[in-house]
Formats: sequence, C-alpha cells, structure tokens
Amino acid sequence: MSRVYNFAAGPAVLPLEVLQEAQKELVDYKGAGMSVMEMSHRGKDYDAIHQEAIATFKELCGLNDDWAVCFIQGGASLQFAMIPMNFLGAGQTADYANQGTWSNKALKQAQMIGQVNVVANCQKDIPTRMPAADEFKWTPGAVYSHVCTNETISGAELKEIPDSGSPLIGDMSSDILSCERDYSKFTMFYAGAQKNLGPSGMAVVAIRKEFAAKGAQNIPTMLQYRTFVDENSLYNTPPTWGIYIFGETMKWVKRMGKENLFKLNAEKARKIYDVIDASGFYRGTAVKEYRSNMNVTWRLPTEELEAQFVKEAAAAGLKSLKGHRSVGGIRASIYNAFPMAGVDALVEFMKEFEKKNG
Amino acid sequence: MSRVYNFAAGPAVLPLEVLQEAQKELVDYKGAGMSVMEMSHRGKDYDAIHQEAIATFKELCGLNDDWAVCFIQGGASLQFAMIPMNFLGAGQTADYANQGTWSNKALKQAQMIGQVNVVANCQKDIPTRMPAADEFKWTPGAVYSHVCTNETISGAELKEIPDSGSPLIGDMSSDILSCERDYSKFTMFYAGAQKNLGPSGMAVVAIRKEFAAKGAQNIPTMLQYRTFVDENSLYNTPPTWGIYIFGETMKWVKRMGKENLFKLNAEKARKIYDVIDASGFYRGTAVKEYRSNMNVTWRLPTEELEAQFVKEAAAAGLKSLKGHRSVGGIRASIYNAFPMAGVDALVEFMKEFEKKNG
Repeated sequence: MSRVYNFAAGPAVLPLEVLQEAQKELVDYKGAGMSVMEMSHRGKDYDAIHQEAIATFKELCGLNDDWAVCFIQGGASLQFAMIPMNFLGAGQTADYANQGTWSNKALKQAQMIGQVNVVANCQKDIPTRMPAADEFKWTPGAVYSHVCTNETISGAELKEIPDSGSPLIGDMSSDILSCERDYSKFTMFYAGAQKNLGPSGMAVVAIRKEFAAKGAQNIPTMLQYRTFVDENSLYNTPPTWGIYIFGETMKWVKRMGKENLFKLNAEKARKIYDVIDASGFYRGTAVKEYRSNMNVTWRLPTEELEAQFVKEAAAAGLKSLKGHRSVGGIRASIYNAFPMAGVDALVEFMKEFEKKNG
Repeated sequence: MSRVYNFAAGPAVLPLEVLQEAQKELVDYKGAGMSVMEMSHRGKDYDAIHQEAIATFKELCGLNDDWAVCFIQGGASLQFAMIPMNFLGAGQTADYANQGTWSNKALKQAQMIGQVNVVANCQKDIPTRMPAADEFKWTPGAVYSHVCTNETISGAELKEIPDSGSPLIGDMSSDILSCERDYSKFTMFYAGAQKNLGPSGMAVVAIRKEFAAKGAQNIPTMLQYRTFVDENSLYNTPPTWGIYIFGETMKWVKRMGKENLFKLNAEKARKIYDVIDASGFYRGTAVKEYRSNMNVTWRLPTEELEAQFVKEAAAAGLKSLKGHRSVGGIRASIYNAFPMAGVDALVEFMKEFEKKNG
C-alpha cells in the first residue's frame, strides 16, 4: 500500500488509523456477523455507535445538556436553506456576514426566504480576509446572526468570534475542532462532515434545544430541526456508515488529545506560511491576521507556473493542490488528519520549485 | 469470519462480494493512494465512479436520455417533501394512493404544501393489501399522482402499475430492481438506497428531465430537482461512499443477471409463503394476490410466541425477524442480496418451531 499526501479541500484525508480499523471490520463489525452498512438503525449494535459518536463530539466541544447534536443529510448546503426556513419568519430580519463564497451562498438562500441584513461584506476583497470586529453592523432585534468561521476557498479564518447581540449561528465546515474555540458563544453551529469530521453525506449540527423548539412548524417534517432533536436523528434512517466513521474520527481526536492536535495544526500551517513569507515567488492570498490554518492559499507569478506547480507536485505524490476552480491559484488543505510529514514534503517541494523556476 | 442471516428491513444485507471488494480497497482505491471516502468529488477517480454508477443503473432500468438519475441526500423521507414542494402549486391537485404507512407519510407531507386527493385508501386494512386497479379514483387534471409500489411494513406489493392519467411518481424504496417492471410508465421514481441499492444516506431518484424542469423555482436550491439534474448531482458534495457502494451493487446485479435475480427473488418468497400456507400456526399478513416478494410478513397465534420465535431465530443466526414496531408480528425482508441459503435456513427453522410449539 502506498498512500499519497492528499491536500483536497473536502472530501479530504481521514486518519489512517480510522481507515484501517474500518477496513478490518467492514464485512463483520466486532463479531456482529454483518457490516455497519447492513445494520438496522433501530438495533442495539448501531445504537451504541450512534450514541457514542454524539457523546464524544459533545465532550470534545464542551457542550452540556442544553445542546443537541444532529446528523442531517444534505451537507452545509442544505443547512443554508433549513436555517432561514426554521428561524426567519415574516417581518423578521436575519444578520448575515458576507465573508466569502460560502457565506455568500448561505445568505442567498436566506434571501429567498425572508429579510436579510448583510452586516459586513468582504466577499470579493483581494487579498482575502474576514471582517474586523468593529466592521460588523449588527441589527438590533435580529432573529439570528450567521457567520462562517473559515472560508475554505479564500483561505481566511475568523480568529475572534464576534458578539452579534442575537443568537449566533456558525458555519464551521472547514475549521470545526481544529483550534480552540468557545462553542458556548454560539446558539447553533454546523459543519459539512467531509473536512474535519468524516466522509461526505451529512452535516453535523449542534443546536441549543431551546432554539430548535422555536423553529417553524409549517414546513416539511424533514426540514424542521425539532424532528432531529426530538428523535435523536432517528426519525428516518440516518447515514449510518458516515456516522460510524465520524464517531471513530472523534475517538481518534480524543486519543490524539485535542490541544495537541490544535498545536500541530498551527505548526503545520506556520511551516507553509513561512516558506511563502520568505519568498518573493509565492504570494499569500489572505491578509496575514486572517490566514486560515486549515486552507493555506497562495499564488505564483503566473497561471502557467501554477499549473506546472500542481502537475509536478502531483507527480511527487502531493495531490489536489489546485485552488478552487472559481479563483485559481494553489490551495493546501491541511485538516486535522493531514500528517506533518506531508507538510514537510510540501515545504521541501515548494523550496525546490522556487529554486528551479523563481 | 462468521456472517449471520440478516433479515433487517433496511439498512439491510448487501452482496458479500461488494463488501469484500470495498474492504480490499478501503484504504487505497485501485492504487489511487487514498480511500474513496477521501477523494475530491471533482477529481478524475471519483468522477469515473459517479458516472459508471449512473450508467449501470440506467441500463438496468432501461432508461433513455430523457431521464436523469440523481443522488439526493435525506432518503425517501425528504422526497416526500421535495415532490410537492417542486410540483404541487397553488390551485393544483395531486393524487395520492394511501396504501400503508409509507404512502401515508408521503401524502401527509404533500398536505402541508397543497391540495391532495386521496385516490384510494387501504392503509389500515387487515389483512394488508394494495388497491385494486379499479379502486383508484384518479382526479382529471391532477398535476401528478403518487403510489408506493411496495409497503415495507405491511408486506403488500403493487403487482400492476396503474394508469393514473397524470405524471406517475413511484416510491420504490423496498422493491426497486427486484422484479420486472416497466419503468417507462413512470415520470419519476425513487428509492431510499438502504434496501435494494446500497447503504443508507441517499435516495436514488430517476426523473424525466422535462418534468424536473417544470419544478418550482422559488424554493431553496438544494430542494429543486433541476439543481441535481443540471449539475449531475454535483452541485454540492454528494455522498461519495454511498454512491460508490451503490455503483458496485448495480454492477453485481448486472453480473448476476437481473432476470435471474428476479426469478430467485420470487423463489425465495415462495418458499416462505409455502410454509405459511401449509400451516395452521403461521398466518400471512397480506392478501395473497398482493403479497410482497421483498418483505414477507406473518403472525403467530400469540404475541408471546412471536417474541419467542424472534429470540430463538436470532440465537440460530437468523437476525432481525421482528416485525415493525408499529404493527408487531414477524417480517422477513429478503432483498436482492439476501441469499437463498438464508431462506432455506429460515424455512427449516419455521417448520421446527411449529412442530415444537404448534
């Protein structure tokens, strides 16, 4: 077996230990005589997987019993619709920060439902960035406020969680559990699973039960948060395999020690940014104080050199370094499961490439 | 490795060959150096998996280019909402047959959106059954009509597809690709994947492109069928692992030969019904002419005996024979991947159990 270094933005690299364990028990899960994929979601074996996944995640995020953790199919993109469908009624205003491609997608869905106030706008700024704390113009009496903590495409990350004055909802798809955060500042946060949490196919949604209970009741059952809270994500058949891998990944985070992992993440990012900053050849995409530790983005002098960089890197086993198709450039996504050795290999490659082409 | 016989109604047994292949390549997919779960959904390796899965399914169902096949997260339950959201406008009527628990759930979601005509109602009939062809009271000018081809809980199956006079939509969650059907009679059909198609976490939706294009445009992007049709289910990150296992399962159906599989399915069901019919002890739940070949349901003289039956069967390696919690009794779900040897073992067990307790 030869594993490559996979810098994909999501779906993305998973912990090798988790994959090897899943492989071992794929046909026969711990003597149950069947695969996790084949288990009834109402049975004892699956139930233990489901409960443990939720409990481990709640422990890692420091969530008390005021919170529910839900598995909702459709990824973050369906959350963009469910949030305003549940919480943005007629005559109400929701605050949205427009910080990049993903927060812009979220607010566009909300605008289809109701009144949105764009409280800050740096979506198209180059270099890419996040709004400063005093830049947000929050609406008094807003029904909720929405921020994206890390813009995967622009490579900018919100380092301080703002005080919005209304229930704060965070899209943390690409930086959840990657750094120290006070999750209690939020009323709800969610993440498409396929970056820091597990395989694609669901969003993990943490929501205060009290808030979920306030959601609209005249919308389809499968689009009400209360359905998932009240039924513990077992109203209909959940994505059982994805929840299993998510749970195993959360146990891996716990074994690694999350503080240790957070330090490693900062160190991995620092190594790449150091090469960029020491170079007149590479140019970081994001304003320094908002640089993402999960998605490191940069440019080369020409698009031709960028294409050559991506191609030669791939040949050297450094895969999926091409920036998002909407913006170009280079992007190294280095989530929790991305190994330090891969960063070291990239850093060496970058130095060599600059020497030859700079 | 010791595999049990898994009679679960879904998630359910998958072909052993598919599981073994998935296990072999879980950590390193065909030399790509990564798991399918880790692959970018925009990359070449995943794209081949995606396209082949769709092509194989279309071939098996005999669908031409008028049709799109979409992977939509949320299972059949989200389809219950998406269908009326897309196609049931103000002042329009949709026809729903109420044939059991699942079609009742579907029509309830439609009633939250618009005007529904219940064209036949046998939901609570005991013995369980489907409406006869002349029982449906179709609405002239209905915007669409909805039937469930197999009620997983009641164990009744629609043997003849009715002519509804409006675009016909079929929930085939529990009998898709299990028997000969003329799919061209439908305008749309769908199935939660976790029974005959693959693991849980999505519905496979076949829809005429022309019909999808008529859907509402003022609903969230992720709830419009056109989004999935126009972007080939790649508007957002699809459930890549589920699609991979689905594709492998479709290739397995092709290798087995679908006609051969259909014959085996009929034979598997016949063997169990024969024991029921030869016995004064077991009592079939469904009217004979509507008996499902996928979910065989029956009762024993008392609930105590049913509990004992389930318990002793489980001890003998015949798992998940308990009927749905809403109706009780016994249910043997015997989808495509369920092996004949498991049916033979059940039949022997049933005869022994009757001898001892009858």
